[in-house]
Amino acid sequence: MTKKLIIVDWGTTSFRAWLLEAETGTILSEITEGKGMRALHRSEFSAYAKSQLDGWRADSEETIPVYLAGMVGAPQGWQQAPQPPLPMRGEELVRDIVPVADMADTYIIPGVRQSGQPQDADVIRGEEVQIFGAMASLGRQSGLVCLPGTHSKWCEMQEGVFTRFHTSMTGEVYEVMSKHSILGLMADPSADFDSDGFEKGLGQVEGEGGLLNHLFKARARVLYGDLEQSQTASFLSGMLIGAEIRAMRDIYECEGREILLVCADRLAKPYSHALSHLGLSSRHISSKDATLAGVRALAALHGVNSK
Amino acid sequence: MTKKLIIVDWGTTSFRAWLLEAETGTILSEITEGKGMRALHRSEFSAYAKSQLDGWRADSEETIPVYLAGMVGAPQGWQQAPQPPLPMRGEELVRDIVPVADMADTYIIPGVRQSGQPQDADVIRGEEVQIFGAMASLGRQSGLVCLPGTHSKWCEMQEGVFTRFHTSMTGEVYEVMSKHSILGLMADPSADFDSDGFEKGLGQVEGEGGLLNHLFKARARVLYGDLEQSQTASFLSGMLIGAEIRAMRDIYECEGREILLVCADRLAKPYSHALSHLGLSSRHISSKDATLAGVRALAALHGVNSK
Repeated sequence: MTKKLIIVDWGTTSFRAWLLEAETGTILSEITEGKGMRALHRSEFSAYAKSQLDGWRADSEETIPVYLAGMVGAPQGWQQAPQPPLPMRGEELVRDIVPVADMADTYIIPGVRQSGQPQDADVIRGEEVQIFGAMASLGRQSGLVCLPGTHSKWCEMQEGVFTRFHTSMTGEVYEVMSKHSILGLMADPSADFDSDGFEKGLGQVEGEGGLLNHLFKARARVLYGDLEQSQTASFLSGMLIGAEIRAMRDIYECEGREILLVCADRLAKPYSHALSHLGLSSRHISSKDATLAGVRALAALHGVNSK
Repeated sequence: MTKKLIIVDWGTTSFRAWLLEAETGTILSEITEGKGMRALHRSEFSAYAKSQLDGWRADSEETIPVYLAGMVGAPQGWQQAPQPPLPMRGEELVRDIVPVADMADTYIIPGVRQSGQPQDADVIRGEEVQIFGAMASLGRQSGLVCLPGTHSKWCEMQEGVFTRFHTSMTGEVYEVMSKHSILGLMADPSADFDSDGFEKGLGQVEGEGGLLNHLFKARARVLYGDLEQSQTASFLSGMLIGAEIRAMRDIYECEGREILLVCADRLAKPYSHALSHLGLSSRHISSKDATLAGVRALAALHGVNSK
């Protein structure tokens, strides 16, 4: 009989789970729209996880192991998992996997952190499995991974070792400035992607003045420049994504390298557009594929199904 | 009998007015806490201005001229004043002064704008009088003026010509990120200025990663670094002010120059601290003094009291 595996990505705003054949990765069943932790009281986490997953486990003769990744392991999550410092291999990461106290054969994958000088401090929780997954899915040991989102991450893997990463608050600054700043009077964050506005934003951050100056340009250019009010959201997006990529390009060797873009489809378009505009090549891997491949790889290292 | 002058700084959130002796600048009376335009319906602007100022004018045998500066001249203000392009002298700016249609001897001072390439577009309204005022109050023709605030301005005057300026959204990004981002869960924007936290913020933006990365550091450093949660607001302030100054230093010649800091007292401290930290010297001029000196100088060029 085929061994199975349950993978859960449980974050602040979403709960997604998959029942897989461990060896092949074939998806047998899927929960795409569960409750994020914010929608539950902390005392409900345990009962909620069981209610979602017990059905899959009850149908099976063996106990199917469950691996969870994401903010579920944060201090405000179900049960806290550590964030050991880089550099590390997958073999090292799985040593800090935390068994959940009140659910059998259930494990939380740790986050990791960047240590060193205080100004280098950085933290990640959830995306670490996607980095291992991106490598596993391509059969690579080394690569540069960009994970766009609320808190975009750029991460480097060298010969199987997760060496370093940087977080940029790109998505959150976009949300907050679109909704709560004077730009919100002009920008409609739900407006369609406008490639002309987006490219003007990319071009804006090439100039002098810094990001705080560029942000005001959205207003000035609409008043007297060449920007339509309906383009403001795409312009802001282009500026922020452009600023992120330019800063990361100064840190990571990017020339002649294929940047692995791990994200939802809606973010792949602007990021690949921006990378290409800056002369950089990229390949898109869906977040889901990266999560599944990463947890499978880490679960194998953790010895699931071989115990 | 001494000629008099009424000066009004009417913005979105405040109305301040002064009755002066035109020649000496002696303040005869003052309104410090009137209603900003946001607190009034547009149809009320005219009656409100008259209710505030008619008392001063009724006591006088002559008609006392009124000069208004600030957002009062914006499209959403009392009556729109133009924003002619730089470079310009005071003599040129006063040509675009707009008489208010429904109040006698009442004038709105125009804003100015930066033109040229679309990415250079920038706009100013209200601070332009303070730049002329900073020069007039020091008896100078040239200088570099920094006006910190919601939208910080750096402006250059060369031999009496207002040549260029740049706006940075420093104060607004501070407000919005403190209140609406995850940093708001940690930062108390009303916390006391903490010089250690502020200097850590200044030091943070010296490093690689760009502002979007530095913003996330406030969280990472509190979790694992050397930053107390109570220092988060000062750290954020140091990062943003530091980023503004560093970007402007790349544009304006700053070495060996005294930067004129035109602002309220509460902003003078962090800005002079940051400038000094970067090896730059500054002199503080209060916004009020700069406004009064600037309007007096422009009113004289406009020919008030000589008509």
